[in-house]
Order: sequence, then structure tokens, then C-alpha cells
Amino acid sequence: MDERNRQVLLKRRPSGAPTIEDFEIADAPLPKPDDGQVLVRGIYLSLDPYMRGRISGAPSYAKPVDIGAVIEGRVVGQIVHSRAPGLGEGEYVYGGHGWQLYSVVPAADLLKLDPGEAPLSTALGVLGMPGLTAYVGLTEIGRPQRGETVVVSAASGAVGAVAGQLAKREGARVVGIAGGPDKCRYVETELRFDACIDHRSADLANALDQAFPNGIDVYWENVGGAVQQAVFPRLNDFGRMVMCGMVSEYNEIEPRPGPNLMAAVRKRLKIQGFIVSDQWQRFGEFRAMAAPLVRKGELKYREDIVEGLDHAAEAFIGLLQGRNFGKLLIKLAEDPTAGI
Amino acid sequence: MDERNRQVLLKRRPSGAPTIEDFEIADAPLPKPDDGQVLVRGIYLSLDPYMRGRISGAPSYAKPVDIGAVIEGRVVGQIVHSRAPGLGEGEYVYGGHGWQLYSVVPAADLLKLDPGEAPLSTALGVLGMPGLTAYVGLTEIGRPQRGETVVVSAASGAVGAVAGQLAKREGARVVGIAGGPDKCRYVETELRFDACIDHRSADLANALDQAFPNGIDVYWENVGGAVQQAVFPRLNDFGRMVMCGMVSEYNEIEPRPGPNLMAAVRKRLKIQGFIVSDQWQRFGEFRAMAAPLVRKGELKYREDIVEGLDHAAEAFIGLLQGRNFGKLLIKLAEDPTAGI
Repeated sequence: MDERNRQVLLKRRPSGAPTIEDFEIADAPLPKPDDGQVLVRGIYLSLDPYMRGRISGAPSYAKPVDIGAVIEGRVVGQIVHSRAPGLGEGEYVYGGHGWQLYSVVPAADLLKLDPGEAPLSTALGVLGMPGLTAYVGLTEIGRPQRGETVVVSAASGAVGAVAGQLAKREGARVVGIAGGPDKCRYVETELRFDACIDHRSADLANALDQAFPNGIDVYWENVGGAVQQAVFPRLNDFGRMVMCGMVSEYNEIEPRPGPNLMAAVRKRLKIQGFIVSDQWQRFGEFRAMAAPLVRKGELKYREDIVEGLDHAAEAFIGLLQGRNFGKLLIKLAEDPTAGI
Repeated sequence: MDERNRQVLLKRRPSGAPTIEDFEIADAPLPKPDDGQVLVRGIYLSLDPYMRGRISGAPSYAKPVDIGAVIEGRVVGQIVHSRAPGLGEGEYVYGGHGWQLYSVVPAADLLKLDPGEAPLSTALGVLGMPGLTAYVGLTEIGRPQRGETVVVSAASGAVGAVAGQLAKREGARVVGIAGGPDKCRYVETELRFDACIDHRSADLANALDQAFPNGIDVYWENVGGAVQQAVFPRLNDFGRMVMCGMVSEYNEIEPRPGPNLMAAVRKRLKIQGFIVSDQWQRFGEFRAMAAPLVRKGELKYREDIVEGLDHAAEAFIGLLQGRNFGKLLIKLAEDPTAGI
């Protein structure tokens, strides 16, 4: 076991797009678990767009990361030292945290993982927070009905891929929006959306009109910006806008204006936001539904795995620009269960 | 009985604020009911902000009024000629229509009114479409809980007055927004809102912060514009925005930008629009709840009655500028039941 921890700290709050200089890599002593805690060695660290909010100073639903503190993140790993009953060394868990190699976690915050059920990494993606996000937003807000039309932005991403596939399972017609031909091909051929529009090349408005001549019933909003501007006026009466995130605007210093809301009256729109952490109580229900689908290959996912904590900042900067292709993970250490 | 009908026609579609020249007064032959229809002589005509949408050519939830056609509107009146079983001459009804003295109505579209239950005019206001609007929006979208904070714009108006009073009955703390000291005094002393802010004189943002130092849970949106801009950033987590109308913007030629919707994610807002005509099936339930309250004086209302069809256009133009004080009605003929 390594003697030292390694961490990525927030050096300063980014103004606009984060740069490598906003982050700092530091070694630190190995933390020691108290009674009821365990020491987790991370295997995969999840990088997610919400972290942009955490390293900004703006008021939000969660406390920001302090300057000089370890940046937040969810980790899958292995217990290397346990002071908690029922949690043994060598067990695989979800619940490590932070952009660091090791973390100390109270037993109550851990979920044991069975590598025979699904690959460990899926606990950070298709069967983890992003998958639950898709499930909650779709079942509580979007509620696509058979024959309805659904647009999912960031369709090849961790949340969008699940949202679109679940909407398809409800019998909706689903069109994805993604950046670039590779992602679009993946969304159409692997994820089996009905179509995918490349927002980088296409005239988005035109492409939406062709895909959905009768308008859009549900819009899964992951990106904001120009995509939102193209989709919003095409929402049908009683349309739902599932407000999950607006990643294309996260680096903007001043918020840009949004759509005039009189359309919400005329069309009886529902525009509703949610935060998955309000809904952890549905995690068990979600995994029970989704894990068998993943095993049968009926719920597809793709991971974009970057090797090494030292590359986390660079990978995160790319995530905000849409450079990742699939769920972005940092591999902190070899996964002993890989290929099981 | 007069031998002729008199009507207000749409002469041309207004560009921006309507002017008197957009309307035309004309005499017409008295229409004749067919089997199953009755001829209604109007007593009160309701003027409502939604009519601005009907005389514009923009796409909306309802067909626009054609050029040269009678402008739409709801009417309370008396049957003067009946060819429908069960509907006798002299009976009072809700369901006449149009900016005109007489209209022919199929029996199925009529609701008989008992002038002993409530004044006839209330069927166009507190116990009619505006009252039902408040009831539907509050029970289906706003759902104020005991102790929550509610802001109602256009608080002295037909819808706002009911929305605020019903929210008070749920135990919410309700602040109205209205234009001018007379309306604000009325909202505070007669309608018994907890407070009222005059958007014409006050620094709205400051006044909202003083009224609600802990933010706003429900915003009843009747007006849009500067009021929306002041309220939106003050919505609390899980806030609801009941999108009923945005009358201050109805005369604008280009829609102005709205709020950035990332707040909907961060705060888990629900921004939802509705149209009362989707919910007529709740009319009976609403009247059963509200009529006793009106009789007991527990649900207050105020009417702004303008004499004579020939003044309808002028009154409507004033309505869009907030010049009315209470539910705006045109008196088409003497009300034989007045003072009963």
C-alpha cells in the first residue's frame, strides 16, 4: 500500500473556462479511518459537469469547494483498511470521494459492489448517479408516452444515453443531439435512437423540423445555449422540458438570456428542474430495474476512461467542451475485477 | 325587443398596442335561433387580457378572430327567444358570446344562472372563468403549503384577487403586486393579503426582499416584464411559477428575452403554464367551493363596470395598460336582477 495520498486541489476559482492553472496536484499523508469508517483506495473517479458549479463561487444548491481543498467527486474503489463492522478489506465499494487516490468514508455512506453483477465502473455511470439522473428526470418530469417525440441533448453522454434509451423503451420516438459524426453514429447504431443530429454541422432548426415535423413533446435539457434556442420554439402543447443541466453555458461569466416564457402559457409547457441528490431514495429501485438491462445488453453505455489522477484537470476541462465520448472516468488504479 | 343587433368587429390586427381604429362598430340583423338554440340578450360582456391574443395573427392555442368578425367574449344575459327544451324565455344564462348585444347559442353551451345564488355578473368574474383560472392554477401548479410565501401579480385583478385569497386560505403568506396606491390599499384592506407592493412607485426588488427576506415559494405570473424580472431571481428552491399570463408584454411586437433557465436546475423550479379552457370539467367543483364563500363575504371581488358596448374597445385598450380596477365588464343592458 502506498504510504502517501495524492490529491487535486482547487488553486483558484476559474473565471470563464477553467484552465490547468486553476488546479494543483499535491501529495498528502494517508488519511486514517476512525471507528465506523474505512479507508478506500480509489479505482475510478467520476468527472461530471456539475463539478463546474462546485468550483465556482456562485450560490448553488451545494456548498462550493473551498480554495485549497480537494475537489469533489464520486469514486469506486476497494477497502484497504476497515474500522467498520461488516465491511472487510478487499471489498469493492461505491462511495469514495474526491479527486484523490485515497479517501476515508463512514460506513453509512458506502454501497458494496458485486463485480459479478456489473463492472465496477458502471456504478459511476449507467448504474450510478448519471443513470439515476436519467431515470428520475424521465419518470418524474418528462414522462414520455407511447408515440410522443423526445429530443435528448448530449445524447452520447452519461445521462443522455440512458435518458434516450429509457424513453425508447416507453415507446417514444427519440432523436439525439450530439457533437460530431462519431457520436451521432454511436447514438444511432449502438444506442438505437431513431436519429441523431450533429449540432456542429447541421442547421439545427432545419434538422429538428425534418426529424419532427409535428413538434417535440419532451426535451431533455443537458446543454442550454444554441440547442435550447433551437428546441424551445418547437415544443408542442403540453410539452415538458426536463431541466437537467446546461453544460454549454457553465463557463459563461454572465448568464445569457433565456426564452420568453409566454410560450409556457400558450402551450401549457412544464419546465422543471431537478437535482438527483434529492432522489437518492430511488437508487435501489433504479438499480433493480437497470442492472438486468445492462447485463442483457439492452441498456448500452460507453465509457471514456483517462489514465491517472494527474490528468483529471485536463480531462475535466475537455468535458466542459464536449471532448469526451461517453461517461468520463479517471482510472486511479488498476481495476482488479476488469474482465471478470 | 330591439329589432337590430349591434356588434364590435375587428377592423384590422393591431400592431403593438391596439387603438380605437382597430375596431369597428356595426349594426346587424338580429340573429335567429335554430332548433336547439336560444337567442340571448347580453347584460354583461367580460373583457379579459386573453383577447389580445385572439385579435393578433400569431399562432396560439385558439383560432384568431378573423378580420371583419365579431370579437370574442363571454356574456351573461337573458333568453329572449328559445327553441330549446328546458330553456325558457326570461331565464338568465351564462354562455352568450361576442362583443355584441345579442347572440344565438346552442343549449349545450349554456349554464343557467340563479340570481338568488350570486349576482349575475359574478359568473364572468369571481365565480366564472377568472375564478376558475385561479382555482385551477393554484390547485394544479402552485399548491401553496401552510407557511409558504406567495407573490401574486395583478393582485387586484379578476384572477389575481381570487388566487391570492385562495392561497391565504391555504395558510400561505401572500404579497400582492399591483399598480398604484388605490389598488394596493384595496388588496391589503379588502382582500386581506399580507402586503401589497406598488410596482409603479416602489423599487420592486427591494420591496420584495423586505416582504420576503427568505424568498418566494410560489409566483403567480399574470404580467411578465419588469415584475417577472424582479421575482424570478427570488424564487426559492422547489419554487413554482404559475404561468397564467404576461399581460404587460401582450402589446410588444417582438418577444423580449426571458430568464436564464439554469436557475430551474439549480433551484429545482417548476415553471408551468395552463389554459383554463382545458379544465372546464372543474367548473362545477369550483363553483360549489366558491359560491358559498362569495355569499358569506369570505371571497371578495370588485368589478369595474363600463356602460355600453360602444365603449368596449376603449375599455379593452385600458385593460392592457392596467387602467381597470377589478374585473372589467361592459354593461350591455340594464340588469333586471341588480340589487336582489
